[in-house]
Amino acid sequence: MWQLHQFPLCPFSRKVRIVMGEKNLAYELVRENPWDKRDELWQLNHAGRIPVLHDTTRGTTIADSRAICEFLEEMVDRAPMLSGNSATRAEIRRLVALFDENFFQDVTAPLLEEKLAKRLMLRQPPDSRALREAMKSAHGHLDYIDWLVDTRAWLGGSMLSLADMAAAAQISVADYLGGIDWAGHEQARTWYAVVKSRPSFRPLLTEKIEGIPPPAHYAMVDG
Amino acid sequence: MWQLHQFPLCPFSRKVRIVMGEKNLAYELVRENPWDKRDELWQLNHAGRIPVLHDTTRGTTIADSRAICEFLEEMVDRAPMLSGNSATRAEIRRLVALFDENFFQDVTAPLLEEKLAKRLMLRQPPDSRALREAMKSAHGHLDYIDWLVDTRAWLGGSMLSLADMAAAAQISVADYLGGIDWAGHEQARTWYAVVKSRPSFRPLLTEKIEGIPPPAHYAMVDG
Repeated sequence: MWQLHQFPLCPFSRKVRIVMGEKNLAYELVRENPWDKRDELWQLNHAGRIPVLHDTTRGTTIADSRAICEFLEEMVDRAPMLSGNSATRAEIRRLVALFDENFFQDVTAPLLEEKLAKRLMLRQPPDSRALREAMKSAHGHLDYIDWLVDTRAWLGGSMLSLADMAAAAQISVADYLGGIDWAGHEQARTWYAVVKSRPSFRPLLTEKIEGIPPPAHYAMVDG
Repeated sequence: MWQLHQFPLCPFSRKVRIVMGEKNLAYELVRENPWDKRDELWQLNHAGRIPVLHDTTRGTTIADSRAICEFLEEMVDRAPMLSGNSATRAEIRRLVALFDENFFQDVTAPLLEEKLAKRLMLRQPPDSRALREAMKSAHGHLDYIDWLVDTRAWLGGSMLSLADMAAAAQISVADYLGGIDWAGHEQARTWYAVVKSRPSFRPLLTEKIEGIPPPAHYAMVDG
């Protein structure tokens, strides 16, 4: 039995959940609150990070969201997320890194810090300057998605791929936290509406974090 | 002709150079100083980061060090760096992420900030508290390498792999900047001496950054 150690608003956990959903894999969720720093998580993953995919039957543990996605891609032929030749695959992986690293650092991480960590742990109000900076960066990243969507069928090329999953995972967390303003980003908005209407995405959109409600449009498929 | 846009003390550039050396690939170096933020680099890589591998003949561009390494692995059978079954490959990729992300964030990045960026750009002395923290974190990571070396032939398993390259690339930059104290880490030291004596590693060890000399033991194969 696969168990996925994850947190509902962790964009890397979301990316893995979407991929497992696309590949139609059964798994159990184990919630890990990042602020708990549970010993059990550190025992599973020396880096102390989520997501971690744990096979309770065989005792196998796979950590790091990119390693997990590559593993699932190698193990399960269904719904390939890294198809094409090596150059196409490199382009998909470049985009995954762009969203996992740059988008996360510029947008998702500051939103999580200001709107989740400060509220739940420090009982402090968010820093409005940091929020403005994150939303400004989000516009820059959405501009790039607009451009990709203008030139390709999907972000990584002609096929739905891990690039779409990585981008949509980050955006969905930023959107939950009120950090996405779609004005002026019709192409990105249309692309995201298509991705979030997929069955693999639905379970994420119905989850709520206690005390932090998402905006009204968040779970709406045409929102 | 392959051109690698890189900086001599960028650990991610080093990882790619070691892999290209192991695979015996010819390429030309293009130096990118991270502080220059050249327009040409941003045109090659929207993330504005090095390394970038550019094929001047075909016009192909590959960005992100992990995407580059996966691409080289798929294109060149010689000197495989990700061999084994999917679980073994996942373990190698987990370790690559651990060194690329955790070791870099805890050790290499603060050392580069304090000893290179502050000196070359701000003409400021390093913050000794930040340096102490980085060196303390380095001990923790070296402890983990000691443990890996005690239980396996190489860091990722029974074969030399990308995990060894990622770890050695980070360590070599930290060592250049005087951030590695090998005392109490005999296993890690022995493993590193073997890796750094490989022909793929030699070109890195002879390069110097103007105004920042490495410690005496840095380029010594038994150092």
